[in-house]
Amino acid sequence: MKDNHSKLDFDRFSRIGLEEAIYCEFKTGVLVNEILKQFLKKNKHCLLTRLSENKLNQIDSLIQKKIEYCSISNTAFFNFPEHSLSQDKKVAVLCAGSSDLSVAYEAIRTLSYYGKNSLNLFDIGVSGLWRLTEKLEQIQSTSVVIAIAGMEGALPTVLGGLISQPIIAVPTSVGYGVSKGGHTALNALLASCSSGITVVNIDNGYGAACAALRILKIT
Amino acid sequence: MKDNHSKLDFDRFSRIGLEEAIYCEFKTGVLVNEILKQFLKKNKHCLLTRLSENKLNQIDSLIQKKIEYCSISNTAFFNFPEHSLSQDKKVAVLCAGSSDLSVAYEAIRTLSYYGKNSLNLFDIGVSGLWRLTEKLEQIQSTSVVIAIAGMEGALPTVLGGLISQPIIAVPTSVGYGVSKGGHTALNALLASCSSGITVVNIDNGYGAACAALRILKIT
Amino acid sequence: MKDNHSKLDFDRFSRIGLEEAIYCEFKTGVLVNEILKQFLKKNKHCLLTRLSENKLNQIDSLIQKKIEYCSISNTAFFNFPEHSLSQDKKVAVLCAGSSDLSVAYEAIRTLSYYGKNSLNLFDIGVSGLWRLTEKLEQIQSTSVVIAIAGMEGALPTVLGGLISQPIIAVPTSVGYGVSKGGHTALNALLASCSSGITVVNIDNGYGAACAALRILKIT
Amino acid sequence: MKDNHSKLDFDRFSRIGLEEAIYCEFKTGVLVNEILKQFLKKNKHCLLTRLSENKLNQIDSLIQKKIEYCSISNTAFFNFPEHSLSQDKKVAVLCAGSSDLSVAYEAIRTLSYYGKNSLNLFDIGVSGLWRLTEKLEQIQSTSVVIAIAGMEGALPTVLGGLISQPIIAVPTSVGYGVSKGGHTALNALLASCSSGITVVNIDNGYGAACAALRILKIT
Amino acid sequence: MKDNHSKLDFDRFSRIGLEEAIYCEFKTGVLVNEILKQFLKKNKHCLLTRLSENKLNQIDSLIQKKIEYCSISNTAFFNFPEHSLSQDKKVAVLCAGSSDLSVAYEAIRTLSYYGKNSLNLFDIGVSGLWRLTEKLEQIQSTSVVIAIAGMEGALPTVLGGLISQPIIAVPTSVGYGVSKGGHTALNALLASCSSGITVVNIDNGYGAACAALRILKIT
Amino acid sequence: MKDNHSKLDFDRFSRIGLEEAIYCEFKTGVLVNEILKQFLKKNKHCLLTRLSENKLNQIDSLIQKKIEYCSISNTAFFNFPEHSLSQDKKVAVLCAGSSDLSVAYEAIRTLSYYGKNSLNLFDIGVSGLWRLTEKLEQIQSTSVVIAIAGMEGALPTVLGGLISQPIIAVPTSVGYGVSKGGHTALNALLASCSSGITVVNIDNGYGAACAALRILKIT
Amino acid sequence: MKDNHSKLDFDRFSRIGLEEAIYCEFKTGVLVNEILKQFLKKNKHCLLTRLSENKLNQIDSLIQKKIEYCSISNTAFFNFPEHSLSQDKKVAVLCAGSSDLSVAYEAIRTLSYYGKNSLNLFDIGVSGLWRLTEKLEQIQSTSVVIAIAGMEGALPTVLGGLISQPIIAVPTSVGYGVSKGGHTALNALLASCSSGITVVNIDNGYGAACAALRILKIT
Amino acid sequence: MKDNHSKLDFDRFSRIGLEEAIYCEFKTGVLVNEILKQFLKKNKHCLLTRLSENKLNQIDSLIQKKIEYCSISNTAFFNFPEHSLSQDKKVAVLCAGSSDLSVAYEAIRTLSYYGKNSLNLFDIGVSGLWRLTEKLEQIQSTSVVIAIAGMEGALPTVLGGLISQPIIAVPTSVGYGVSKGGHTALNALLASCSSGITVVNIDNGYGAACAALRILKIT
Repeated sequence: MKDNHSKLDFDRFSRIGLEEAIYCEFKTGVLVNEILKQFLKKNKHCLLTRLSENKLNQIDSLIQKKIEYCSISNTAFFNFPEHSLSQDKKVAVLCAGSSDLSVAYEAIRTLSYYGKNSLNLFDIGVSGLWRLTEKLEQIQSTSVVIAIAGMEGALPTVLGGLISQPIIAVPTSVGYGVSKGGHTALNALLASCSSGITVVNIDNGYGAACAALRILKIT
Repeated sequence: MKDNHSKLDFDRFSRIGLEEAIYCEFKTGVLVNEILKQFLKKNKHCLLTRLSENKLNQIDSLIQKKIEYCSISNTAFFNFPEHSLSQDKKVAVLCAGSSDLSVAYEAIRTLSYYGKNSLNLFDIGVSGLWRLTEKLEQIQSTSVVIAIAGMEGALPTVLGGLISQPIIAVPTSVGYGVSKGGHTALNALLASCSSGITVVNIDNGYGAACAALRILKIT
Repeated sequence: MKDNHSKLDFDRFSRIGLEEAIYCEFKTGVLVNEILKQFLKKNKHCLLTRLSENKLNQIDSLIQKKIEYCSISNTAFFNFPEHSLSQDKKVAVLCAGSSDLSVAYEAIRTLSYYGKNSLNLFDIGVSGLWRLTEKLEQIQSTSVVIAIAGMEGALPTVLGGLISQPIIAVPTSVGYGVSKGGHTALNALLASCSSGITVVNIDNGYGAACAALRILKIT
Repeated sequence: MKDNHSKLDFDRFSRIGLEEAIYCEFKTGVLVNEILKQFLKKNKHCLLTRLSENKLNQIDSLIQKKIEYCSISNTAFFNFPEHSLSQDKKVAVLCAGSSDLSVAYEAIRTLSYYGKNSLNLFDIGVSGLWRLTEKLEQIQSTSVVIAIAGMEGALPTVLGGLISQPIIAVPTSVGYGVSKGGHTALNALLASCSSGITVVNIDNGYGAACAALRILKIT
Repeated sequence: MKDNHSKLDFDRFSRIGLEEAIYCEFKTGVLVNEILKQFLKKNKHCLLTRLSENKLNQIDSLIQKKIEYCSISNTAFFNFPEHSLSQDKKVAVLCAGSSDLSVAYEAIRTLSYYGKNSLNLFDIGVSGLWRLTEKLEQIQSTSVVIAIAGMEGALPTVLGGLISQPIIAVPTSVGYGVSKGGHTALNALLASCSSGITVVNIDNGYGAACAALRILKIT
Repeated sequence: MKDNHSKLDFDRFSRIGLEEAIYCEFKTGVLVNEILKQFLKKNKHCLLTRLSENKLNQIDSLIQKKIEYCSISNTAFFNFPEHSLSQDKKVAVLCAGSSDLSVAYEAIRTLSYYGKNSLNLFDIGVSGLWRLTEKLEQIQSTSVVIAIAGMEGALPTVLGGLISQPIIAVPTSVGYGVSKGGHTALNALLASCSSGITVVNIDNGYGAACAALRILKIT
Repeated sequence: MKDNHSKLDFDRFSRIGLEEAIYCEFKTGVLVNEILKQFLKKNKHCLLTRLSENKLNQIDSLIQKKIEYCSISNTAFFNFPEHSLSQDKKVAVLCAGSSDLSVAYEAIRTLSYYGKNSLNLFDIGVSGLWRLTEKLEQIQSTSVVIAIAGMEGALPTVLGGLISQPIIAVPTSVGYGVSKGGHTALNALLASCSSGITVVNIDNGYGAACAALRILKIT
Repeated sequence: MKDNHSKLDFDRFSRIGLEEAIYCEFKTGVLVNEILKQFLKKNKHCLLTRLSENKLNQIDSLIQKKIEYCSISNTAFFNFPEHSLSQDKKVAVLCAGSSDLSVAYEAIRTLSYYGKNSLNLFDIGVSGLWRLTEKLEQIQSTSVVIAIAGMEGALPTVLGGLISQPIIAVPTSVGYGVSKGGHTALNALLASCSSGITVVNIDNGYGAACAALRILKIT
């Protein structure tokens, strides 16, 4: 595996306020290893997404030691200095069912990589509407809402009629039959009758967090 | 157009409690005319669905006179004796938006053909949740609920967490882009996290009413 | 895994007459375990669906002991008191082929969780029509019919022309090529020329049973 | 429009026993006209399919005079000598609903172009099973069966379990929502649990007749 | 057409800071008319979207007089008081080709309904990269960017690597073959390798503007 | 596993000239075993399709001894008496590439189960046209042609312009990207410009053989 | 309609050797008119594609006079100086059926705009293989082949096994049912077993010609 | 496994300048082995694609010794004489991300099999535009460009506006959710607003190289 197999964009943060993250799903362990070596050589840190435990274990032990891994979301912080999170919670991360946890944690971890604390509310789907309404005031106190839902994806639509903040909806691949793969939730979110909801790719907790960070930057 | 082009199933009511309805969308005006003549010859009445005004006008004027037409739903009663509807409203017909009216009326007309009155509530979609909750008690007083929704189709899901009756969900073709054709609403309804919701074809108000009639028959 | 990862809706039965079931497919064994602990703490029972044997084995042995598991349908009763089923069989569960057994058993088990006995007829698909017609009278003696079919899904359509009860059709993922995944059966059922058939998601025996229970409640 | 815009395959009959037919749907009236002139110059006849009445009227009146047109199927015989049909009916053309007539007539006309009489039975779909069973013996007396069905396409499947002849199934574009375009009927026919059914393109009555002719040739 | 055919949500602005807009595509002219009468009765104004010129002309002339119509975007302001736009341009509305104009104007008009001026740059797609780069500084001076693109939808992706603001991407139905309907642009935007881009439904200029307004509200 | 889990159609051969085959893909080993026991009890034989080696090994050793298995096609003959094949080869089984072998062998084995020898020609796809043309005369000497092709599926189209017999085309799931799953080959075969080709489900060598047998029966 | 609605890329030819063409399908007549005025002001010429006759007629008569229109392909040359075509024919434009003419002419016209003559062979599809083989030598004498086919798209695959030049395949939207829209031809071309065939969008004769021009530029 | 299971096209190179490659994905190890034996017997060499390491290990050790394998691209050279590559680099192989490496190497290896050196540039996607622009001159020095991209596939579109050479775009299956399988990249490339880009199947590095070789042959 030669050095020129990747060409890292170290200036991205200065251009757009977000660093290049290492998306590991289609990279071999060998390639992830080489990329991390480049970060280490420059003494830079990075965020890794979709790093399976299996692939994690293919990484050199010296490199591995500098990785802080989260097995719920398959994300990792590499060569990351200790840092504390913001006190205030400007972003709410909501998910409709406990099956959506891995996506929610991908968002939470990304926010935390950039130093942002978040209000996290899990399993508040609309088939038990009270779970949402009892938290409404708390949700309204944040600046941006990431709303995660699989299956029919009704949560963000109901939310859209109740709150005024930006809502970034994340469809998840939870479900079977017609919902499998998350395309139904995705389409339902894009077709929502509630106005002004925006959507990211299926299971893309990372992207939703980045969109929230773009918004926070201008506030 | 010869007689043997259609073979009417006059005994269907005795077998399954529902008559054969004449689905006109893919029949020429000439063919519809011939079919109605057969009904007339036997002095039978029938329900016609998806009969466009244009096709209605291609029918012989003598036959046409015996047609009672509804232009919102494109349904017609042919050779139908006067009859009064039931006092009680055992079926609720709900729709999420006023764009869903034609489907709602197809259901209402079918119920009315079989003598059933219905509780009709239009434009109560979940982006303004109060419109649903203020009617909840009224809805709970019926035996069967037909819930009609296009776009993201969230109404029946929310309803499913609030009421205990049978819910027959009807997706509609209202919407554009990802929702166009009603497939997103259909899939969202089938993938609903609310338990025990059943679904019929897109825009199939007629079928939903028939399903409600099957249920009423066993109560 | 923290407590707030799930927010159980213990009041659902009082609202809609159906309890919250635990859908395990996208939950880790760890998460299922935590959820069952909450049920145990409140001394409540629950139904689990799509619980693979593999995931079952990840559950704490103390918790596991209180599980009654069915390996055909991958369903489980947790902390469930002994109970006897109704004598009468108000629901018929029919399936077209013996490949559809797991879906049929998901429906049968769900009915049985709620104390309902059922008339179960397997492998009566229409390529051997006599298998259906010889059972017709028996089927007509029930109140609600759950009709399960994969491949081309013709069984419920034929049935729809022969019986007057509510028919809840369940497409299954049985088949290959054009039928794989069950979408062809699903669409064929929704497009059926037989009136008043309603449909649930592919392989959704649980949902069909819930729909039947909603109907039984109003009879 | 120049001569070289089409290159007619006048030898096809000698190679495969079927002539080149003129498929008009995507040809301008001008082009159809030019093609027919070539046939006329060689004093050959031909079959035209999917020739709308509108396009028919764009053809030179001299050419038009030599056309025998059928408005149900949009087929035409050009420059065709009088001929009588076979006495026996070796092919059965069945259709499930009267909405499928245009496809049935495309098959019937093609057979008739090649001198074959056919047993034609319309509107015998399985939602009224008696309509099929009362004709079963008659159907069994033919050599090849063309079975045409839209919507859920159940007719050929039921037929497949009752007769031993070759069955050529033709899905039609009749239906709406999930069935629209005929893809559901097509897939249901290909996925049929009845063995040995073969299928042609949606609405392809012409192709089904050609397949029947190929079979008759070897008997 | 009776009053209860629509149930207007006049309180929506107080709840979420956005009014209910009248989506006219699937409403008859008669229904739109009735809805506007309700607004007039309460002396309220509203925004109408997807109002074709044809449907506009079906509206009562008295009502029509109070409509300010834009034929590029098919939007209308009803009963709207004169108002001036903000001096500053906090939102940029960019589109890749001049074929995307109608969508761009739907966004611009919606912003203008809420009093927001916008920086509008048309026809700056990436096949002529200089058109984008020469405007980069101007774009960076705004707070929120609405980026509209059909066909392959590459503009927002390139933009995402160059600017740090929130980007709301709108796919359009411009294109043919594989792009027709806008699904390719939609999917390309959701799959973008640029981080933090959010997406709305195909051709949904209205929704994009609403999302921008939600963001502006928290800044 | 109880007896009533399957209801075997032992009379099928007398009705339609084809026996019920056991399609094993979605049946557990336990269920296949039970079914074979029923055949043994009646001293009947049967054909099994899609029986993986893995599932084969789950069958009781006594039952297994009576199975003659083919690992290329995953088919098995159960309890089958010795028999010799017909001398003449009335069916040609052609495949485009050597990757299509398993489907070809499913057809060959099915024919052989019914005592029919076949002319088998493998790897004669049209990218090397000479491979087809040099065998043309041999192919023309048979009565029915089964033509198997994956990827773009061009072989049967070319064949259709060269021979006059019935052609049963079988698309295969060979290929990747746009062809994966065989849907492209399937659609290309259904859309073929060659007249009178019929098609069966993807990879359905069994069904193609059954269709050939139906044809042979009437010759 | 204001000037800034389009931003023409007049330098494109100097960058990539191809000019910006005006794709008219989604532009109003008013917009096309404004764009052509800009070309006139700079005394530049341009190529217009997908300009319907209807839209052509909406253009100012002065502008219209400078348009040379082709109604088969809906292309136009604007403000174009007389020019003669190359003597040699380096590009072959082949189409499978006479229904593909409009796409073929879009390619031919584009080549001609850039001064290139072409070898044009229409209606040489593989269902009459002799039509292709008799022209093989002529085809082999060119440098680049544009092969156009609808329905099952087999022509380029057969061609790919017979010639060594670059083949640019163009699927067309000719066909119905499974082929309608050209997606089947497109996929069949991309999945072709013949090596080294490249593909452009459905009906994209213009793009195929541009690709050929890119190739000619390097020879 | 018998000899006649494959019919190798040893003359292909003389016909079209490209040899038959062995596509191993759907062949068993046994079959690949038999094919290689045929090559060995004739002392011919060949290229193998999509040969997994697992399948490689099923090949006889004597045959295996004559294989030169590349594990990044799963390609192999069999019985290949030593040869040196061309000095000049007429083909550029570019890929957008380091996840696309396997496809890039399939192209590079194929070119190298035919003796062609190539300019290889990895990870130059447009979210960091400088990575592309700094290499532009180098890219412009080649004759043909193979541009490989997954996800939204924007790289070839941007490239198409900057260079004049033939561009063969290869979509890759890199991505998840809406991009999974590479269909979004494929469609985006086919719908590109940049003129004259041609496309091959998803992940088809081999085909792209063959297309480049076809072009080089005429230069």
